Amino acid sequence: MTRALKFTKGHGTGNDFVLISDPDGQLDLTPRDYAFLADRHVGVGGDGVIRAVKTANFPEWSHLLDADPDAEWFMDYRNNDGSDAEMCGNGIRVYLAYLLAEGLVSLKQGDRIAIGTRAGVKDVQVGANGTFRVDLGRWSMGDDELAPADAVIGAHGLDVARPALGISVGNPHAVVALANDAELKALDLTLPPVVEPVFGPGVNVEFVVPAEPLVDDGIGRISMRVHERGVGETLSCGTGAAAAALATRHWAGASAPHNWRVEVPGGTLGVQMFPTEEGEHVSLSGPAELVYSGIIAV
Amino acid sequence: MTRALKFTKGHGTGNDFVLISDPDGQLDLTPRDYAFLADRHVGVGGDGVIRAVKTANFPEWSHLLDADPDAEWFMDYRNNDGSDAEMCGNGIRVYLAYLLAEGLVSLKQGDRIAIGTRAGVKDVQVGANGTFRVDLGRWSMGDDELAPADAVIGAHGLDVARPALGISVGNPHAVVALANDAELKALDLTLPPVVEPVFGPGVNVEFVVPAEPLVDDGIGRISMRVHERGVGETLSCGTGAAAAALATRHWAGASAPHNWRVEVPGGTLGVQMFPTEEGEHVSLSGPAELVYSGIIAV
Repeated sequence: MTRALKFTKGHGTGNDFVLISDPDGQLDLTPRDYAFLADRHVGVGGDGVIRAVKTANFPEWSHLLDADPDAEWFMDYRNNDGSDAEMCGNGIRVYLAYLLAEGLVSLKQGDRIAIGTRAGVKDVQVGANGTFRVDLGRWSMGDDELAPADAVIGAHGLDVARPALGISVGNPHAVVALANDAELKALDLTLPPVVEPVFGPGVNVEFVVPAEPLVDDGIGRISMRVHERGVGETLSCGTGAAAAALATRHWAGASAPHNWRVEVPGGTLGVQMFPTEEGEHVSLSGPAELVYSGIIAV
Repeated sequence: MTRALKFTKGHGTGNDFVLISDPDGQLDLTPRDYAFLADRHVGVGGDGVIRAVKTANFPEWSHLLDADPDAEWFMDYRNNDGSDAEMCGNGIRVYLAYLLAEGLVSLKQGDRIAIGTRAGVKDVQVGANGTFRVDLGRWSMGDDELAPADAVIGAHGLDVARPALGISVGNPHAVVALANDAELKALDLTLPPVVEPVFGPGVNVEFVVPAEPLVDDGIGRISMRVHERGVGETLSCGTGAAAAALATRHWAGASAPHNWRVEVPGGTLGVQMFPTEEGEHVSLSGPAELVYSGIIAV
């Protein structure tokens, strides 16, 4: 069936998405349809596609581990190839900006909303000037499956392989510290980083450089480039920014701050670590921009 | 100045463009604005941007060598980086489809129209089923500046470097024959082909494989992949398809046909060679699809 589908294109620090509205869950899109929408040459183009559907109309929702009746909206996230994905830290900010712009939710600055994802319910807060903050929840470090203690990662443009620190923020990351901006700039990430020993089914790799000074006005500052598994270098990766800040705080020692500013090629993200009853959470804040809307035959 | 700009996205065999209408030449877009429109993450995204402007309202037109008062419309083509370009074989088909869809010209199947470009006036004909044919004009082969007789081109995934044949279709191409589809498929064009000796300021490289049989029902058939200078591998290159067909006809000898079907990753193109008073011309035919329209703040 060919339908005229209204969509909106948006991005958060250059991580870009095609957003479509389907509150009642009546669209019958195939993975191929999602891949077409995300195709940058023959479709609209995006790192992913996000369908706005009410949790009540998303049949799988009741089967998700911590399905929460308070979450009215579900973020049905699809990768660029049409396959479904659990969560996207930049995507969920753009998703909330979209829900607001479409009049599907009504919130003011400071308000919070629970949004359903395949990785469970995420708490998102409306910030100032078109920014949003999402609580990414618990994180973990040093799990040998994430990155063995002797793991090293090399990349084209880097003279020798460097040690990697494994961090999970729902998805797996390996963070590598570089000495300075020149090293970061010299990286050629058109080819995947070389991970030794190979661990897990693939890992996102963040290369980070501390700013000089590292901490300014109580905020830690780093620059980062990221190679996303199965994708290549991207302009931004939300969970990668969180992992990079967590790793740098670890390396910086006990006096390191819990608030970080992470410069990625597509802009600036904030990362905050804060205590909760179940242990420390990490949150991600940053901009979300809706660029245009259109109608496409799918 | 920020303006709400109406645009249409279209493609020809996967070579994609952002099209905007400016008959009176009143838009005041900078190279940066064009680059924003072509940006695949924060803008609309395309291999290029095409502005529809009347030749009468394009001041540079009267200075172009063969400025032709019969050409009512000019194709103001911009590269992905915002710089201007002379011509685009896939783009001019999509441009005419756009002029028709916007009601800016009125033509029926078989009609021809003269379109102004920075490479002079091009004759475009309306074909059947949403296809168009553009006369690319004169071509040349064997110029030592295009590719010295001893030039070889290597690529990742190819066991040894192969001889290259230099062909100009307004822009420079080096065509390399491969033995079979397996060799073509094995090419890794994420890195540029290695050209020895280096010639010219950079060249587009086409790797071609003849079909089995080469000629079917009077039509020569080849498959091709292309690495465009300064861009990388693309889904399609119109002038590259023409160069590939011209080279293959040369290699096939005197009995080779003058009509070719070229399979590119993004679809199928036709190439025709035909005599004119000034010598042989080569033309390119293929589809043009308009995918959606939208409004963006620029």
